[in-house]
Amino acid sequence: MSVTDELLTNAERYQRDFTKGELPLPPARGVAVLACMDARLNPYGLLGLQEGDAHVIRNAGGVVTADELRSLAISQRLLGTREIVLIHHTDCGMLTFTDDEFKDGIAKETGIRPPWSSEAFTDLDTDVRQSVRRILADPFIPVKDSVRGFVYDVRTGALREVV
Amino acid sequence: MSVTDELLTNAERYQRDFTKGELPLPPARGVAVLACMDARLNPYGLLGLQEGDAHVIRNAGGVVTADELRSLAISQRLLGTREIVLIHHTDCGMLTFTDDEFKDGIAKETGIRPPWSSEAFTDLDTDVRQSVRRILADPFIPVKDSVRGFVYDVRTGALREVV
Repeated sequence: MSVTDELLTNAERYQRDFTKGELPLPPARGVAVLACMDARLNPYGLLGLQEGDAHVIRNAGGVVTADELRSLAISQRLLGTREIVLIHHTDCGMLTFTDDEFKDGIAKETGIRPPWSSEAFTDLDTDVRQSVRRILADPFIPVKDSVRGFVYDVRTGALREVV
Repeated sequence: MSVTDELLTNAERYQRDFTKGELPLPPARGVAVLACMDARLNPYGLLGLQEGDAHVIRNAGGVVTADELRSLAISQRLLGTREIVLIHHTDCGMLTFTDDEFKDGIAKETGIRPPWSSEAFTDLDTDVRQSVRRILADPFIPVKDSVRGFVYDVRTGALREVV
């Protein structure tokens, strides 16, 4: 039995107890959360989010690339969110390698160098700041009054505001 | 008090009860979930995920662009995940507009046409299939034995396998 099959068994249980079938499409709290994909960072538990509350956008690092700007533009323009919460975290995998190392390794194995940046970074606070700046600099995101950036501590569970 | 401030109050509560400070960086279940950012789709509840279990990657639509391929490559190559679960859902915002409509509207307002595709789609199953194919076609993701695609029904809570 694969792990995916085990998760599907959990999904059957979720469906049996499901009572949230009438929620509207736009997020009730009007917030989009952009966070790292890290397994230890659970935005639902951390921020007390329930089904229907917020858009949750995630990727390796919680960084801002073209695809996160696309998601945020759709979130605000079509579904009315007005606040953005950006979360990086301590002990992040993105701190453990350099862009060149990662892509050199892939090129050596596959014969192709990835045409994208890995978005590896060396300092959490600096990358939170520049991620927020990438959002503020984007011409397609209309509402920028509340774009706040945080670092989550995976050892203590604390959320610290950076910018 | 902004919604973000309310979420920070929740985060203080999470920290007070926090007991998961010793979890390792690699996801315990070896799975990466790629899902839509939709507020009604809670991958933790649906799949029974706990802190430490899985990478969770999310964007508008649960689509596969360069940034999701970056995240999946990092997930597998640096942190050892070996299964991918892709989830779209019913009543998705991405079904409600066309790429041209969305970008024409932005161009009219800002004077700039976004240089990216909105990734809007017209059929859920078709987009799940082509999203899985984008992963299978990528040269940088090493493990493709278990790449399965699903549609989550926001009215019933059911998860249906497409491919």
